[in-house]
Amino acid sequence: MQYVSEETLKSISSHKGIVGTILTDSLGIPIKSSMDHATTTQYARYVALIVMKSKNLAADIEPTDTMMLVRVRTKLHELIVVPSEDYYIIIVQKVVVGDEHQHHQHHHQRQ
Amino acid sequence: MQYVSEETLKSISSHKGIVGTILTDSLGIPIKSSMDHATTTQYARYVALIVMKSKNLAADIEPTDTMMLVRVRTKLHELIVVPSEDYYIIIVQKVVVGDEHQHHQHHHQRQ
Repeated sequence: MQYVSEETLKSISSHKGIVGTILTDSLGIPIKSSMDHATTTQYARYVALIVMKSKNLAADIEPTDTMMLVRVRTKLHELIVVPSEDYYIIIVQKVVVGDEHQHHQHHHQRQ
Repeated sequence: MQYVSEETLKSISSHKGIVGTILTDSLGIPIKSSMDHATTTQYARYVALIVMKSKNLAADIEPTDTMMLVRVRTKLHELIVVPSEDYYIIIVQKVVVGDEHQHHQHHHQRQ
């Protein structure tokens, strides 16, 4: 089983606006985290369910398809889950208010 | 109960790369859809669970927080769910291979 290194997690955590990073196994059990135990457990528990349902959806709609990323955006935070065969990386970042506007602008320039 | 108009759904569906759009009530029961019944039911069923867990997560972590958007990205499709008080809009779009690269470039220019 090949996990993400401590350095990689630390470097992600050091990015501006990052609230925390969690590495879990493929069942959603936390392995490493930059956040406290209670918060880590909360995120991991929900993410495991969200990712499982997302994987089921992808496979149900098109069996050859694979789930690549889940993003849950709330008013205060953005949760990004990057699943791989053996583990999930969960990244929690603060929402910067201007972000939405810039993202919207970028989206329109590309169409 | 104020829903999204048929015109709005049609205009979303007409965008390039959009595979389908679904309007469901707040329980995830489909109300309008541009896709066939079976596919609509499949998406709506999973999305209801994914959104419910995402809402629970947001409220559990920070009671004042509100869920704004969920994105599930797979190799073939991107699923975007926009929840509001009374309904969800589910948008399914094709993934354009260059998309990932452009999005990545944009992300780096902003940091």
